[in-house]
Amino acid sequence: MIRVGVIGFGYWGPNVVRNFHGMHDCQVVGICDLDPHAFHRASAAYPGVEVMNDSSQLLESTRVDAVAVITPVWTHFELAKKALENGKHVFVEKPFTSTSAQAEELIELAEKKHLKIMVDHTFIYTGAVRKIRQLIDEDVLGRLYYYDSTRVNLGLFQHDVNVIWDLAPHDLSIMDYLIKGKPQAVVATGAVHLNTHEDMAFITVYFPDDVIAHINVNWLSPVKVRTTLVGGEKKMVVWNDLEADEKIKVYDRGVQVGNPNGVYELLVSYRSGDMWAPKVDQTEALKLESAHFIDCIMNDRLPLNNGAAGYRVVKMLEAADLSVKQRGKLIEL
Amino acid sequence: MIRVGVIGFGYWGPNVVRNFHGMHDCQVVGICDLDPHAFHRASAAYPGVEVMNDSSQLLESTRVDAVAVITPVWTHFELAKKALENGKHVFVEKPFTSTSAQAEELIELAEKKHLKIMVDHTFIYTGAVRKIRQLIDEDVLGRLYYYDSTRVNLGLFQHDVNVIWDLAPHDLSIMDYLIKGKPQAVVATGAVHLNTHEDMAFITVYFPDDVIAHINVNWLSPVKVRTTLVGGEKKMVVWNDLEADEKIKVYDRGVQVGNPNGVYELLVSYRSGDMWAPKVDQTEALKLESAHFIDCIMNDRLPLNNGAAGYRVVKMLEAADLSVKQRGKLIEL
Amino acid sequence: MIRVGVIGFGYWGPNVVRNFHGMHDCQVVGICDLDPHAFHRASAAYPGVEVMNDSSQLLESTRVDAVAVITPVWTHFELAKKALENGKHVFVEKPFTSTSAQAEELIELAEKKHLKIMVDHTFIYTGAVRKIRQLIDEDVLGRLYYYDSTRVNLGLFQHDVNVIWDLAPHDLSIMDYLIKGKPQAVVATGAVHLNTHEDMAFITVYFPDDVIAHINVNWLSPVKVRTTLVGGEKKMVVWNDLEADEKIKVYDRGVQVGNPNGVYELLVSYRSGDMWAPKVDQTEALKLESAHFIDCIMNDRLPLNNGAAGYRVVKMLEAADLSVKQRGKLIEL
Amino acid sequence: MIRVGVIGFGYWGPNVVRNFHGMHDCQVVGICDLDPHAFHRASAAYPGVEVMNDSSQLLESTRVDAVAVITPVWTHFELAKKALENGKHVFVEKPFTSTSAQAEELIELAEKKHLKIMVDHTFIYTGAVRKIRQLIDEDVLGRLYYYDSTRVNLGLFQHDVNVIWDLAPHDLSIMDYLIKGKPQAVVATGAVHLNTHEDMAFITVYFPDDVIAHINVNWLSPVKVRTTLVGGEKKMVVWNDLEADEKIKVYDRGVQVGNPNGVYELLVSYRSGDMWAPKVDQTEALKLESAHFIDCIMNDRLPLNNGAAGYRVVKMLEAADLSVKQRGKLIEL
Repeated sequence: MIRVGVIGFGYWGPNVVRNFHGMHDCQVVGICDLDPHAFHRASAAYPGVEVMNDSSQLLESTRVDAVAVITPVWTHFELAKKALENGKHVFVEKPFTSTSAQAEELIELAEKKHLKIMVDHTFIYTGAVRKIRQLIDEDVLGRLYYYDSTRVNLGLFQHDVNVIWDLAPHDLSIMDYLIKGKPQAVVATGAVHLNTHEDMAFITVYFPDDVIAHINVNWLSPVKVRTTLVGGEKKMVVWNDLEADEKIKVYDRGVQVGNPNGVYELLVSYRSGDMWAPKVDQTEALKLESAHFIDCIMNDRLPLNNGAAGYRVVKMLEAADLSVKQRGKLIEL
Repeated sequence: MIRVGVIGFGYWGPNVVRNFHGMHDCQVVGICDLDPHAFHRASAAYPGVEVMNDSSQLLESTRVDAVAVITPVWTHFELAKKALENGKHVFVEKPFTSTSAQAEELIELAEKKHLKIMVDHTFIYTGAVRKIRQLIDEDVLGRLYYYDSTRVNLGLFQHDVNVIWDLAPHDLSIMDYLIKGKPQAVVATGAVHLNTHEDMAFITVYFPDDVIAHINVNWLSPVKVRTTLVGGEKKMVVWNDLEADEKIKVYDRGVQVGNPNGVYELLVSYRSGDMWAPKVDQTEALKLESAHFIDCIMNDRLPLNNGAAGYRVVKMLEAADLSVKQRGKLIEL
Repeated sequence: MIRVGVIGFGYWGPNVVRNFHGMHDCQVVGICDLDPHAFHRASAAYPGVEVMNDSSQLLESTRVDAVAVITPVWTHFELAKKALENGKHVFVEKPFTSTSAQAEELIELAEKKHLKIMVDHTFIYTGAVRKIRQLIDEDVLGRLYYYDSTRVNLGLFQHDVNVIWDLAPHDLSIMDYLIKGKPQAVVATGAVHLNTHEDMAFITVYFPDDVIAHINVNWLSPVKVRTTLVGGEKKMVVWNDLEADEKIKVYDRGVQVGNPNGVYELLVSYRSGDMWAPKVDQTEALKLESAHFIDCIMNDRLPLNNGAAGYRVVKMLEAADLSVKQRGKLIEL
Repeated sequence: MIRVGVIGFGYWGPNVVRNFHGMHDCQVVGICDLDPHAFHRASAAYPGVEVMNDSSQLLESTRVDAVAVITPVWTHFELAKKALENGKHVFVEKPFTSTSAQAEELIELAEKKHLKIMVDHTFIYTGAVRKIRQLIDEDVLGRLYYYDSTRVNLGLFQHDVNVIWDLAPHDLSIMDYLIKGKPQAVVATGAVHLNTHEDMAFITVYFPDDVIAHINVNWLSPVKVRTTLVGGEKKMVVWNDLEADEKIKVYDRGVQVGNPNGVYELLVSYRSGDMWAPKVDQTEALKLESAHFIDCIMNDRLPLNNGAAGYRVVKMLEAADLSVKQRGKLIEL
């Protein structure tokens, strides 16, 4: 039985509590939030769980095995560090930390203490992303060409971060999971319209073997779009996360290029066959993820989305942030 | 009565012929194509019009007042130059020329000879684009924030140009028409997967006053997308060119940022009101455009999409091409 | 303060409890369900509310002012009758009763006892339906032509009723609210494929002045559709309840017929103007409805969706049921 | 070489001429239309073909082997009869005739004269309908449950017929092709709003084995819909004819009903698996159909859509027309 304390009961925290609360091998022993409304909501929803507004109570408690840090990104490092120092495993909301240096320090600390870090890259546990990974692993898509994601809406502006740190972690963590090669460099462009933070950005990530990824994030779109194209040599995928059913469509479409017999002109031919929408597992992603966290602690396994994955995403965020502020300067990773 | 000769009867040429043929003040006096099939099709469709395979016949004929050059881009300069030298007005398929130097030379020549150049930026004559322009001119959108276009499909690969020169001229000419400020710089990223030309590219164009434009062009998309977002301070537009009706949707959505009373936190509020799909004029764009060309010749007016507009688009194409080959290097315009 | 007891905590009951629970002038004093799982869920969710499995405890309690009957339709009459006999106001899940005779008996009883009946026609409190009603009331649509609804999905088969009693009450109650004239007659066709109940049906309701309504209900559709067309002389509405935004689209489209100067041929002309998606109030319908119920009790007002409305819907259901079993025999109302 | 004369060069006639004109084994030897504009258009488009305004010239010519009658329905019988009497095969626009008695007379006449009748049920030659037929023939769908079609738009009002005769022939001919059993009876409801003809109608056709078909036709819809559901025991099809690609979607969805061990409650379970959009042949339907007509003449074969098919569709149209005028009276076939 793993005893979990959760810090942060704002937008996402209640989902984390609900999932850890619903597991057999796990017990939520404390919830912490500074905001009186969140405090009240937590008390009402979980009468049997201790609610507090001082995180030290959780971080230092001997009754806590693991701490979930579901707070703004600028607080992650201090809270996670303290938890690790006190011998607790940590589950940290994405993005992992504000800087890659912080991420490295936490990873080192966890290793020294033999503790687990899981960074909450929820999307890689969705049925849709696992299905795309399966299509890649089983070579259904063939050689990978590109990943192109549009993630725009009329957004919740964050006061402390720009749109890159707010929306891009989703795609960066998905790319980290789907694309085998190591990212080489980042180019990002964008603009600031309303305050001092970028409210829209266009991020290109270069991978080896001509694999290219592009992310379009925007807080100023009148419509919500969550569409990702994954192009392969054999097949191509359109993932529309806003569809209730048929989130994933696999197209038997492609291009062949030939140049036979020394003919001057290239012979380009197109293939346009069936489309197929595989059934996608509907299990709540966070449920699978939190179960995996508890399992990793109990059986001493390495989490799929461990500290290193969190570090890689933060590295790309840093690079994109640096690039966007220099009008698309190429940042090598 | 303006007598027009048309060079090129491939994919687009027949539309140009049909429109000039259908006008009162205009007569198509010759069609030229090297390809025997095109030659045959032209002869069958226009029994009364002379069809030939030597463009000199048209370019040098005293019976021709204007020449339409509807051929691959690398041939534009030579053909248009010869036409101008022979005292003929020219209507040139987009992109205007292969280089901005060529465009400048043609503009200069036309001025010296008092001849008209029109570059076939058809899209700016569509009901949709004219409606967006009207919404901007009448300040319905308010201060402009951005233009973001996705123009992807499983494409016709061109053998002589990359995806930028093939698909981006559409958006660049629309931007040239819609955005008041002068473009400052271009950043483009992309990749080559199948031969030696980029088959996908992501182009950012920086304008003054934090106006930013982004174009996503891709020949390797399994689905066809033609969607453009135009964001303004007051209202935002979604233009989906693949919709039969309701191509343009105007959203009464926006964001206000305030910071009253020295309060630390920004006050961000959202506006989410009605959506409105104005009726869009369905007149064939090329019909309006060709009529404008004839009118400009007959009444000595400056075409909206004159040589200078064509030059500006070629400048941006050159910059994007240069940038994509240097992994997103910023190219000042 | 109105004290409410709720019978039935299955699929819909929890929503009813949550809404009455959240109101100031109202207190949920008891929840009853025979099913042990429902009993357990109610106890866990509302620690402060008494949960029981014998409805008599609620129906006879002096601590209860009003009873909400959220149980299968065949139980409505007995439970509501007992509640009324014991001097309690009743809120009854739709459809009101299994027969119109039962509905009449309950209405009479309530009148004699000066008690309120509200039948849970939730849909008429949605922002979408209220907006359509407003468009009709303000004569935006002009003379009404038709109401045509498609309400199909791969369905929850009910064991006790057919698809008409399961899905048609929604549209019948909406029609009762939107269409001014009294329904005259019903024709219904349908088929039984899997057991002894109709699993698909097509219902026509004739109204005065050539207003016609049609409802397509189907438990065997592979896709879920919730689309209703409301046609008027001046404007036409498409209501797609599955859209997150833009549920209601108002089309400035129509037809004019003229026959001027004794000309033999009719002159038909079409109008195709703008489309407009008015913002629709997102307040939870059940919240407005339950507040209205409490208000009607406290201030002795007649509920909009009172027993008579419930009776009218049951009359149409009876007629449709009778008609479908006689292969479309016209049933006068 | 079959020599064809075409009567009627209005909306559909040009397509018929174009297809017969494009075939090797066939020659269009005459086009007839009373309308001067149609006459002019035909002359311009087919300089080598004789154009006339007196149909007798074609019907009596010894140079004509077959006549295509592409005129309003009320003229079909006289023209086709005269053609058959003169020893010519006939291709008749749908619906075949104004009455089933006329259809019978023509069929009898053709048999006596050993001539072919083809009724232009174009839709059964589309890739979509042929694919659905294949799915039925190969038992992919399993036992057929229903056919449910919505065919609505802001319509071309016909002056001589109501919406049933205008739009329903499409679905009735498709049903005649897809559904194996013989239609038993028809129930139709509808309304007249603008003149003396029904402008919307809802038609149910009963088939053996609980197969049911429903057609929703409407000239007063603000939006165009062309969607048909075909439900089977094993799989279900959604055919959206307005989609450019993916017209046909096959859903691995269904319902099983069991009643094991004398248990009182039925056990209903749902199956929700993959969706699959098979590639659909894009060949022009009319091209295949006209080739089949010529082949039937040359090789003395019975056309798929022969006079008998035309008769069956007219029988259903008559029944629907009779039923709608008697408010849904069941008409046995």
